[in-house]
Amino acid sequence: MKTVEEQMEVIRRGAVEILVEAELVEKLRQSISSGVPLKIKAGFDPTAPDLHLGHTVLIQKLKQFQDLGHEVCFLIGDFTGMIGDPTGKNETRKPLTMDEVLQNAETYKEQVFKILDPDKTKVVFNSAWMGQMTAADLIGLASRYTVARMLERDDFHKRFTGQQPIAIHEFLYPLVQGYDSVALQADVELGGTDQKFNLLVGRELQKQEGQKPQCVLTMPLLEGLDGVNKMSKSLGNYIGITEPPKEIFGKVMSISDELMLRYYELLSDIDLAALQKVRDGVAGHVGGTHPMESKKALARELVARFYDEGQARRAEEDFVHQFKQKEIPDDIPRVNIKAGHPVWICRLLTEAGLTASNGEARRLVLQGAVRLSGEKVSDADLEVAACGEVVLQAGKRRFARVVFD
Amino acid sequence: MKTVEEQMEVIRRGAVEILVEAELVEKLRQSISSGVPLKIKAGFDPTAPDLHLGHTVLIQKLKQFQDLGHEVCFLIGDFTGMIGDPTGKNETRKPLTMDEVLQNAETYKEQVFKILDPDKTKVVFNSAWMGQMTAADLIGLASRYTVARMLERDDFHKRFTGQQPIAIHEFLYPLVQGYDSVALQADVELGGTDQKFNLLVGRELQKQEGQKPQCVLTMPLLEGLDGVNKMSKSLGNYIGITEPPKEIFGKVMSISDELMLRYYELLSDIDLAALQKVRDGVAGHVGGTHPMESKKALARELVARFYDEGQARRAEEDFVHQFKQKEIPDDIPRVNIKAGHPVWICRLLTEAGLTASNGEARRLVLQGAVRLSGEKVSDADLEVAACGEVVLQAGKRRFARVVFD
Repeated sequence: MKTVEEQMEVIRRGAVEILVEAELVEKLRQSISSGVPLKIKAGFDPTAPDLHLGHTVLIQKLKQFQDLGHEVCFLIGDFTGMIGDPTGKNETRKPLTMDEVLQNAETYKEQVFKILDPDKTKVVFNSAWMGQMTAADLIGLASRYTVARMLERDDFHKRFTGQQPIAIHEFLYPLVQGYDSVALQADVELGGTDQKFNLLVGRELQKQEGQKPQCVLTMPLLEGLDGVNKMSKSLGNYIGITEPPKEIFGKVMSISDELMLRYYELLSDIDLAALQKVRDGVAGHVGGTHPMESKKALARELVARFYDEGQARRAEEDFVHQFKQKEIPDDIPRVNIKAGHPVWICRLLTEAGLTASNGEARRLVLQGAVRLSGEKVSDADLEVAACGEVVLQAGKRRFARVVFD
Repeated sequence: MKTVEEQMEVIRRGAVEILVEAELVEKLRQSISSGVPLKIKAGFDPTAPDLHLGHTVLIQKLKQFQDLGHEVCFLIGDFTGMIGDPTGKNETRKPLTMDEVLQNAETYKEQVFKILDPDKTKVVFNSAWMGQMTAADLIGLASRYTVARMLERDDFHKRFTGQQPIAIHEFLYPLVQGYDSVALQADVELGGTDQKFNLLVGRELQKQEGQKPQCVLTMPLLEGLDGVNKMSKSLGNYIGITEPPKEIFGKVMSISDELMLRYYELLSDIDLAALQKVRDGVAGHVGGTHPMESKKALARELVARFYDEGQARRAEEDFVHQFKQKEIPDDIPRVNIKAGHPVWICRLLTEAGLTASNGEARRLVLQGAVRLSGEKVSDADLEVAACGEVVLQAGKRRFARVVFD
């Protein structure tokens, strides 16, 4: 078993905040001396079993705790899921039936067990205790928190001051989540930074119940492929863990070096020493791994996690092959063209000096010998948006970088 | 059966607000044509079964509905009473046991059946339906109202803006009260003006359940003996309905003519024509009843209500006898004495010129011949507070009005 400090090093990796770190150290010390693992809780919404890498940040941290020998409780919040959004205003929170919950839970397990060890993971449903709770009990629970304190939660505060309605039951959900920690006697609860308030509610309810309050560990919200916005389905900047190997590989290869470091820290299994080499490579230090190699290794690791080693290797080979085909030389002539209305592809080729006439251009397009920023052009009537920058290619060797300004 | 307009005249008596009057008229019309009485709901807290006249304002209005042929639901809010104030901060809201609730209910019935007809009164406990409610149901109920709207309630608003804590469960209680109207399918709910918000919650919940919304009738909070503050135990300005006949009679006789009119309107069974005569008397109009006679009649009516006619008569005789004994002439000498530290009763008598010496004063006190503002003084060492105004009496004939300034 690792020492307290070794464990803390693993636990701190990528974490935004640990509250209270001294308490966690003490819990780890006691766990080592008693041989009793800590109970690590993380709650998941049963409505969205289709995970992307953003969701796996937490699961990855759970795995680290699991590898350190602790007990992971994967909590499915089916109680509130089966209530849904009783206002009926929120389409995405329609009440689920018990069947749907169980089905979603199966999908969840299938996906998370690609990361977690099923034998060491306790999957629990909060309907087990919340379903038994009476209205009177819930009133007792609601008495433990004030309206003013609930309004301190960032999103509530914003909605309240912005005069957006908050239904009263929304004040009850953080209490339910907090009560889950009481029911589980959790030692640590993980969540995204947006969950911090709710995690702290659990801490307080445990104190009031005479339990040792859980430590709270928040993980960052993973940035999407754009490196700026939170990874999300609706923004389209995500990598779904059930996407085909080729897609996962290609998407990872498309991210910036900076974002790659972030993904390494939050998603990779490589240890802290190897992580340092990746960092050194990006920083251009001697002894670092070349960024392109690091990126390929990360893409392989992720595909292998959700598929297997063989598929990871094939995805890499496909990628390399495709990349070579599309390769664009570094030193191609630059042509400035006035930005404005879309330009006909053939005229553009001629204006850029790649063809002698629009007629030649048309023939080349129809032969499949023209590429626009790496993509083959098949429509000889294509109108090209006259803004930004494109790379034109005619035949194997003729290139031009067209800058619209 | 009375016509709609006749009923409305009775119903409007003393009421502060009827929401919505046109709907109530329609309900009465339908009740007359179908022969189905309206369900009239009023809720009572099971913690305070020791009623004073202030509480009976509502019960009097219930009786009027009962006399009009409608069905009265006397609802005892034992569900919340058995929860009490879960914060434990409120001493007066300790959770009640089922036994205490039943005992209080008995005391309640004993007291209110002095006004209401027990055969025509349905006594119900809201634990009957609220006790069955699950936490999930309560969350559904809580989703029907927003935080902002709940904060419109006067007392919540004041506490919130004054940064006084509001526990979240307090937001649930108006919803529980409102749900009681749904469970009872109430046609009308009565309450004090301070209950208006809660009564309207019931109206809305019924609408959401597809029921015809109840009409809401608010009654004023009865002023206490001082004619200014709300009648309440803690202010000491109340008439308890279990007080001895003599006390009730005497307290009624002590109120101002203005307040008497108010009590007549809200507490008396006399009809509107007789009420007009009382008003005329106070206004000094020809044909009105003399205010002193009206006051005695009201005192008799109230004692008879809570005891019987015989006791009412005896209370009146006692009062008249005592009043004559204590009678203070109108034209007594006035003495000004400097306000300040308390003054020894004997010195006060001498300074006021009623006795020649403190020794004589002491002898008179010990003989029981001294009165201070009508009350016999038995303690010769009494210190009299030197502020305001008192009437001193030594023997049958010697009086002085002492003004401390």
